[in-house]
Amino acid sequence: MYYIGIDLGGTNIKAGVVDETGRILTEAYTKTLARRPYEDIVRDMGACVNMAISSAKVPVEGVASIGIGIPGLADAQSGRVVFCTNLGWHDIPLREEMQKYLDRPVVIDNDATVAGYAESIAGVSQGCDCSVFLTLGTGTGGGIVIGGRPWTGMHGIGSEIGHMTLAADGVPCTCGNEGCVERYTSATAIIRMARELCLTYPDSMMMQRAGGDIDRINAKTVIDAAKAGDPAATEAFDRYCRYLAMTINNIIALLDPDMIVLGGGVSHAGEFLLRKVREKLPRFLLYKNMPYARLELARLGNDAGIIGAAMIGKLAVEL
Amino acid sequence: MYYIGIDLGGTNIKAGVVDETGRILTEAYTKTLARRPYEDIVRDMGACVNMAISSAKVPVEGVASIGIGIPGLADAQSGRVVFCTNLGWHDIPLREEMQKYLDRPVVIDNDATVAGYAESIAGVSQGCDCSVFLTLGTGTGGGIVIGGRPWTGMHGIGSEIGHMTLAADGVPCTCGNEGCVERYTSATAIIRMARELCLTYPDSMMMQRAGGDIDRINAKTVIDAAKAGDPAATEAFDRYCRYLAMTINNIIALLDPDMIVLGGGVSHAGEFLLRKVREKLPRFLLYKNMPYARLELARLGNDAGIIGAAMIGKLAVEL
Repeated sequence: MYYIGIDLGGTNIKAGVVDETGRILTEAYTKTLARRPYEDIVRDMGACVNMAISSAKVPVEGVASIGIGIPGLADAQSGRVVFCTNLGWHDIPLREEMQKYLDRPVVIDNDATVAGYAESIAGVSQGCDCSVFLTLGTGTGGGIVIGGRPWTGMHGIGSEIGHMTLAADGVPCTCGNEGCVERYTSATAIIRMARELCLTYPDSMMMQRAGGDIDRINAKTVIDAAKAGDPAATEAFDRYCRYLAMTINNIIALLDPDMIVLGGGVSHAGEFLLRKVREKLPRFLLYKNMPYARLELARLGNDAGIIGAAMIGKLAVEL
Repeated sequence: MYYIGIDLGGTNIKAGVVDETGRILTEAYTKTLARRPYEDIVRDMGACVNMAISSAKVPVEGVASIGIGIPGLADAQSGRVVFCTNLGWHDIPLREEMQKYLDRPVVIDNDATVAGYAESIAGVSQGCDCSVFLTLGTGTGGGIVIGGRPWTGMHGIGSEIGHMTLAADGVPCTCGNEGCVERYTSATAIIRMARELCLTYPDSMMMQRAGGDIDRINAKTVIDAAKAGDPAATEAFDRYCRYLAMTINNIIALLDPDMIVLGGGVSHAGEFLLRKVREKLPRFLLYKNMPYARLELARLGNDAGIIGAAMIGKLAVEL
């Protein structure tokens, strides 16, 4: 059998036909053009699905399920999107609408959850019974796998690692709290830390590379300058990695998974990031002499959304 | 069948005969007298076990297993205690030594894990698929149940909720980190907060009740004075409850359990504690309009240790 995976983002819709091992056979893309009526967006999702099926040359009867990863919160029972800020969606009957285009079981889950599950099926955490995936992007997202299955908790509101408090009464967060993990471990966080340091060190390589415009410093500017040895960028990157290590220790202290996987924009810093975070982590561990979770980089990149979405659909029809 | 549960504390050894529903038939106690050779302590554990069996009038063949809850870390495979600070134990062959007195399968786990499991079998969280137990005592301990079973992670080092960072670079902790949950949510924490406030408010009811000696203020002094409306005690209790609410939100954001159960010394504040923490929690929740974990008080009190220990033994022989 084959499984459709849809990665619904704020910018792009991606759909793919995936086999039972998590391999993508074909993909189709289009622009999301968020803020359109949801019926229009789902119609384009349906068109992508049918395009992917037809180029895969698999019979439509061979498709068992549709999985959809969304940058928001879904209700597993009803198949409705509770909300999806990027798309301006509130209480949208996504399953019902999608089935107008292909009448198969539809499963919807959060994009970070889906990506983490993909890594545990076909990526770096393959075979891990329990893993935690962190997307270090504009925000910080979490994808938890327990017992080989995606875990979003008993009310579907878990794995929101980005909104755990890391610094009580710390930096105000967009969510209304203060000191959330996201404020210290996202790409947005590393940019904030770097810009703060540039106020003190206006001659930093980061400022030069941003053409003297502090607002043009992005995560890549900081990482590249840190790799080149710029002191202010190194300091910003160090601070960032320290908070990330604290967050990883919090995950270990609570859940103690087999593996913690770093994905999202900041993870493109690769071994440079991994080395520094691995170096900083032991300082925070409660049990210094016990084995603990391996820390690794995500492997599936942009494919994780399609693969994971397809695999949550597969899981649902197998249960 | 019957199951032996042993609650091995720094002060007392308690052993009980427990039936398959988690009911204690008989118990036997003795002093731990920590710092003795471990062989002497285990010999007394064995004597308690045999006393409890004989007064229960159950045939020794009817005993299926022995479970032991310890204030430390055990290795599930080997049955050895990795360490147990209160007892001065490091790498002790507890299973092997215990079997000299009663040759049954021996399972050892952390006391908070065991107590949380007891509540999920025979206490307030009975029937919950996923629950988190917090012991608010000298330290803060955690007991996690996932899928109806105790969860200590993939390397046995999870559920250490007291040593998650709640305040990056906050109050130094005995573990060597800073800002651990335990520094803000244990009985020790409420005492610290109260004593700090008494420096500013030396006329507080807390000081009067402590006979003017700030070092005699304990958690009960603070809670009683807060109940009586003393402003400084109310402020200390408020601060404490706010940090506890943050911690509970962190558990919800990551794991999203069915229920969070409060046990340990501070939980004796009862409804007074529960009401205040329930009131403060919504402020921190990411999803204000979604259902979330119920917050309840532990019901089994001191029996949780024996019941939970017996039930982890039962679980092990059933697997």
